[in-house]
Amino acid sequence: MTNPLNANWFTEVCDYGGSAFSLKLKENGHIHHEKSEFQSIDIYDTEKYGKLMVIDGFTMVTSLENFIYHEMMAHLALFSHPEPKKVVVIGGGDCGTLREVLRHDSVEKAWQIEIDERVTRLSEEHFPELCESNNDSRAELLFADGIKWIAEADTGSIDVIIVDSTDPVGPAEGLFNEAFFKQCYRVLSKQGILVQQGESPLIHMKLIKEMHDALKNAGFQQTKVAPFPQPIYPTGFWSATLVAKNLDLDTFREEAAMNKSFSTKYYNAGIHKGALATPQFILDSLD
Amino acid sequence: MTNPLNANWFTEVCDYGGSAFSLKLKENGHIHHEKSEFQSIDIYDTEKYGKLMVIDGFTMVTSLENFIYHEMMAHLALFSHPEPKKVVVIGGGDCGTLREVLRHDSVEKAWQIEIDERVTRLSEEHFPELCESNNDSRAELLFADGIKWIAEADTGSIDVIIVDSTDPVGPAEGLFNEAFFKQCYRVLSKQGILVQQGESPLIHMKLIKEMHDALKNAGFQQTKVAPFPQPIYPTGFWSATLVAKNLDLDTFREEAAMNKSFSTKYYNAGIHKGALATPQFILDSLD
Repeated sequence: MTNPLNANWFTEVCDYGGSAFSLKLKENGHIHHEKSEFQSIDIYDTEKYGKLMVIDGFTMVTSLENFIYHEMMAHLALFSHPEPKKVVVIGGGDCGTLREVLRHDSVEKAWQIEIDERVTRLSEEHFPELCESNNDSRAELLFADGIKWIAEADTGSIDVIIVDSTDPVGPAEGLFNEAFFKQCYRVLSKQGILVQQGESPLIHMKLIKEMHDALKNAGFQQTKVAPFPQPIYPTGFWSATLVAKNLDLDTFREEAAMNKSFSTKYYNAGIHKGALATPQFILDSLD
Repeated sequence: MTNPLNANWFTEVCDYGGSAFSLKLKENGHIHHEKSEFQSIDIYDTEKYGKLMVIDGFTMVTSLENFIYHEMMAHLALFSHPEPKKVVVIGGGDCGTLREVLRHDSVEKAWQIEIDERVTRLSEEHFPELCESNNDSRAELLFADGIKWIAEADTGSIDVIIVDSTDPVGPAEGLFNEAFFKQCYRVLSKQGILVQQGESPLIHMKLIKEMHDALKNAGFQQTKVAPFPQPIYPTGFWSATLVAKNLDLDTFREEAAMNKSFSTKYYNAGIHKGALATPQFILDSLD
């Protein structure tokens, strides 16, 4: 039996999970390839998922389904915080999370600290809808090392830190350890929130547990796993990890979420409440 | 660029979604193939997902992740109904849904109406954990046409009907139309519930909308989409459709779910509440 896939498909193999995910390309659908200072970046034109950005062989974002990830990475944290004014996105070079953050009127300043400027330039070209708030006067796009930026930031100066990174290999490795979380704890304001893309509970539970332990050691007392669908990542079953200082993440500004001034495609107040429920095996593993 | 997958992988191509999902096999991992009276059935031994059953080329069930699907197909309905006594599973030949149904002490009788006996025989051999309640005195396994069985069942005789079928092509086609739903409505008792595997909201919203319209035409006034992860199906983002007679599906026996006498791996009372929240684009599409 030969495999039905051929060169007209982009395939990401997840060795660790023993699975692979593939998207069918349009004719001549591999439309860009480059080696930036940090990583290889490819852009594909797919048959059904729109554009696809791939970094070092791993799918990052597609036109069809990025809304789920970006909305969940931004709105869970921003509707949990009583009044988020200063927000930092670490990574997030496609600018989709930044766009969602800037939908909140309370936000006075939002930094995006992406290490690789090429990711943002390619997103501006191929995912312009994600970049439509890049010129917002409250936005500051920096191309720098997020770990260093956080280490140098003023104590208690940030309300929400969103770590919108690749997996903990390569440039993103330092975003998943206790030293970084300790700096985040220091930098966050009194009721500050840290949200981190949290991998797949189905196959990465060990890593998630280690992350939660490191977050607790760094001072965050309550850790939450908020699962959501992520169709282009292994298992399609992804999560955000949320932690806060002096704030109960089991409550949120529900009224504000119900009456929000902007529209969303995935997030709503019910979804926020639902995301606070945790599948039993995750509860059992983290206990 | 050649595709990295080879004959050591099982691949399911989803033409409609322009995607494919693959699982890596153990050496000589294609361990069974047959053509039954109704369909082709294959069993694979995968590297990380345990055993895999494939029908007519479509993944059905793996050892690793079937718990999510089976628990959600059974417990949402059974904890919504005030006292489910008579339950029918249409399809469900791997017996995993039946096992979950029989965990409920209130259930006096559970029928499994699977058209293809070979599916059950192969499940007994390769997924014995799913079949561990097949000899429960309350269980009756019939190998028959579920559409015909429902058409011949007594009016008002069943509390919960669970349609645990393949996609609406081939033998399962007749399980997704108004004529079938009308028969279900007739057969259900006063507060009866019908739950149907509901496809992927991300790529099958048109089909889901048609299904909801057909259900409403058949007499069910409230329709709910309960999303859950389904890692081996296209997009990994799956759903159950729930409808009921004279019963508000936005409430359920929460106390009973919190104090249930059996353990689960995915479902719990919080997850039930969370599953009643609907992503915004689904609400918008169904309105």
